[in-house]
Amino acid sequence: MIDTVLDRIDSTQDAALERLKQLLRIRSISTDPEYAPDCLAAADWLVSELSELGFDAARHDTPGHPMVVARHSAPGPHLLFYGHYDVQPVDPLNLWDSDPFDPQIVDGDMGPALRARGSSDDKGQLMTFIEACRAWKDVHGTLPGNLTIFLEGEEESGSPSLVPFMQENKDLLKADVVLICDTGLFGDETPAIVTRLRGLLGEELTITGPSLDLHSGMYGGPARNPIRVLSRVLSSLHDSHGRVTVPGFYDDVPDLPTQIKQQWDGLDFDHSDFLNEVGLSELAGEHGRTALEMIWSRPTCEINGIWGGYNGAGFKTVLPSEAHAKVSFRLVGQQDPHKIRESFRAMVQDMLPADCTVSFKGHGASMASEMNTDHPVFAAGLKALSDEWPKPAAFVGCGGSIPIAGHFQRILGMESMLVGFGRDNDAIHSPNEKYDLRSFHKGTRSWARILAELF
Amino acid sequence: MIDTVLDRIDSTQDAALERLKQLLRIRSISTDPEYAPDCLAAADWLVSELSELGFDAARHDTPGHPMVVARHSAPGPHLLFYGHYDVQPVDPLNLWDSDPFDPQIVDGDMGPALRARGSSDDKGQLMTFIEACRAWKDVHGTLPGNLTIFLEGEEESGSPSLVPFMQENKDLLKADVVLICDTGLFGDETPAIVTRLRGLLGEELTITGPSLDLHSGMYGGPARNPIRVLSRVLSSLHDSHGRVTVPGFYDDVPDLPTQIKQQWDGLDFDHSDFLNEVGLSELAGEHGRTALEMIWSRPTCEINGIWGGYNGAGFKTVLPSEAHAKVSFRLVGQQDPHKIRESFRAMVQDMLPADCTVSFKGHGASMASEMNTDHPVFAAGLKALSDEWPKPAAFVGCGGSIPIAGHFQRILGMESMLVGFGRDNDAIHSPNEKYDLRSFHKGTRSWARILAELF
Repeated sequence: MIDTVLDRIDSTQDAALERLKQLLRIRSISTDPEYAPDCLAAADWLVSELSELGFDAARHDTPGHPMVVARHSAPGPHLLFYGHYDVQPVDPLNLWDSDPFDPQIVDGDMGPALRARGSSDDKGQLMTFIEACRAWKDVHGTLPGNLTIFLEGEEESGSPSLVPFMQENKDLLKADVVLICDTGLFGDETPAIVTRLRGLLGEELTITGPSLDLHSGMYGGPARNPIRVLSRVLSSLHDSHGRVTVPGFYDDVPDLPTQIKQQWDGLDFDHSDFLNEVGLSELAGEHGRTALEMIWSRPTCEINGIWGGYNGAGFKTVLPSEAHAKVSFRLVGQQDPHKIRESFRAMVQDMLPADCTVSFKGHGASMASEMNTDHPVFAAGLKALSDEWPKPAAFVGCGGSIPIAGHFQRILGMESMLVGFGRDNDAIHSPNEKYDLRSFHKGTRSWARILAELF
Repeated sequence: MIDTVLDRIDSTQDAALERLKQLLRIRSISTDPEYAPDCLAAADWLVSELSELGFDAARHDTPGHPMVVARHSAPGPHLLFYGHYDVQPVDPLNLWDSDPFDPQIVDGDMGPALRARGSSDDKGQLMTFIEACRAWKDVHGTLPGNLTIFLEGEEESGSPSLVPFMQENKDLLKADVVLICDTGLFGDETPAIVTRLRGLLGEELTITGPSLDLHSGMYGGPARNPIRVLSRVLSSLHDSHGRVTVPGFYDDVPDLPTQIKQQWDGLDFDHSDFLNEVGLSELAGEHGRTALEMIWSRPTCEINGIWGGYNGAGFKTVLPSEAHAKVSFRLVGQQDPHKIRESFRAMVQDMLPADCTVSFKGHGASMASEMNTDHPVFAAGLKALSDEWPKPAAFVGCGGSIPIAGHFQRILGMESMLVGFGRDNDAIHSPNEKYDLRSFHKGTRSWARILAELF
């Protein structure tokens, strides 16, 4: 029974790839208001695609970018699939080997790959599920079962409209369990189900000193330089052991249960390879922790952007009036983003010397989440994935923040099973993002198998 | 005799202002290669202007922007006048109240002023000298005496072509003494002759960590973040007393002679006003020094620009591969910029953690200079300026770097007398740069008086 669907997936890969390329050509960068019309276009493209497949699909406008919700009613358990159609910005553009929005097939280390912004995160991934539904329908004449597809357009920009939308549309979205495709393989042979996700808190700060840009000859010495102040603030965010110094930061960080640490230590993970692939050789961060421990179970504070003064060609002897940074925190356990935001802001405020002021802008705040793997969907997922891939599937953590899983838990009382087919070298959020055709193909097959297990 | 020239200046101010506006409309930003044709155009405009006045004027091309040299031979002492026709960049453009290259007459705190990039630094100032020559010629039928005018187009970008040009054109440039117009009044009633100038050393550094931009979810924790490293480096450049920590930095910094400190303390200078005008209230910088002491006699280290990661709208959870800063040092006494450059680079290198590299780019290196005020030109200057302005002229220092004075000393054996009519609130290097019409008018009259004293 499942074999005919898998065969159908195998024989229609070219057409599936063409459909993905269409979606990738849409410049749906959610964080930059300039691309709002593109986000709208991506949502419309998906509504049209899902309607054609037999879903009752609609675009739901929000104060931000629209949601897409598609429904197919049928008897049996009700699954909700979640993905996001928005993508990261593309800068620095000069480091791309081709136009980020003109998908190209390129040679990869595991065969051909599709290079484009969003190819892996998350357009390629969400299309594996839709293509599995398409193949199922081609073979059986009907969609696989009781399904809702829910696609968001603000995942890369803090999802400001998500929680209000979920709260206002509980009936529309309530199902038995959630499937999410926005994560990666554990290894090239080993699929993974993510059971722990870090939360995320984003902060932008602007430190102001003099009321105007000054000449460093006339004022250098007596006048306060906000870049110096900002550097001092940022360099004080970690102590000499790599720990974050924001007061109370570790209050709600649990110790890792021994059993989970043992399972992770048993995974086939090479710390050196992990670092070497990105040009590094030594673990930075908290002293005495393994890489997996840090990424999956420890909170961080990172500076994601900094700017101030003159950064053009040549030199300008300016003492700027303002200096800026974007700082983010990855959160774990019960860390409360709002409490940490307040503590961070108070700490910065306290460090300011005379004549400096600081203003803050929040960019999203989500708690970490942990899944209850006793739910039967997890056993079904492990089996289906282990059938498709060379090695058995593993429960893993994820350093990234997919706050939606926590929202589904808290707002709609649903567990989420996170399955995905990305690889560490996909360069998501970086120039030359790509998605292996093997990920796309076996990903589609994996969903078909999971659907067969669940329906 | 001088009165007829002064009357002529008074009655031709409107036409003089129109000529200055023409020069200000040329976008001669020297640091940005995009504006090279504009620098050429400014040089050509000046050659044409000086030729029309009767000078034997020519553009001298260099590997960078051209020099303008204009000669009028006559009996008597030979004076060389220096100014620069290039200007600073204009960013942030949104803070200008009008197009920086469309000069506007605006209301100022001392009557009307001319707003435009370069109005004060240095096009307005250099034109005071040229207009004095023009009025002299209008009245006497000939230029005032044995004169060379030497105008540079790279002053705002480290003057890379200047020293080679001076070395290769000693005969062309050799005179008895130099007059420079690129400084300011000491107070609104008090003209000044600058006798001390700080040197300048510019450094741009790029710290590289991972070989590509990383996702802060996947790598946040174990991966090195170059912005964090840069912040730490920059925040360590000063100690808690505001002193620069670069090894050996103060080795060649002399104590200020008591006599000069007393003269400065006797000047009518209000530290509070100086700071309040730019939105500050407390002296930053080295503890226990007055503002004048710091600006005129102490070296500094300032961060003039910083950038790395994402700085667009919204948020991007990136760990960037690179972070950058532009750092400059103001130098005094016998501080050797090359020695300090090496010491700074070694210090940064030593601070780098594993997996980080740094690359440097030098942006100009000039020593401080101090004038020998025994030369008779200084007595003549003091008298002429004191005749024109309400209060007597003062010998002062200057925190800015006009390395040309040192070059004239070292390469051509000439003393320079620096006289200028800018004000602290001219916003040079900042948005809304302006030059008071009073400065332009009385500046022109001042030069006419100085020429009358010297010829």
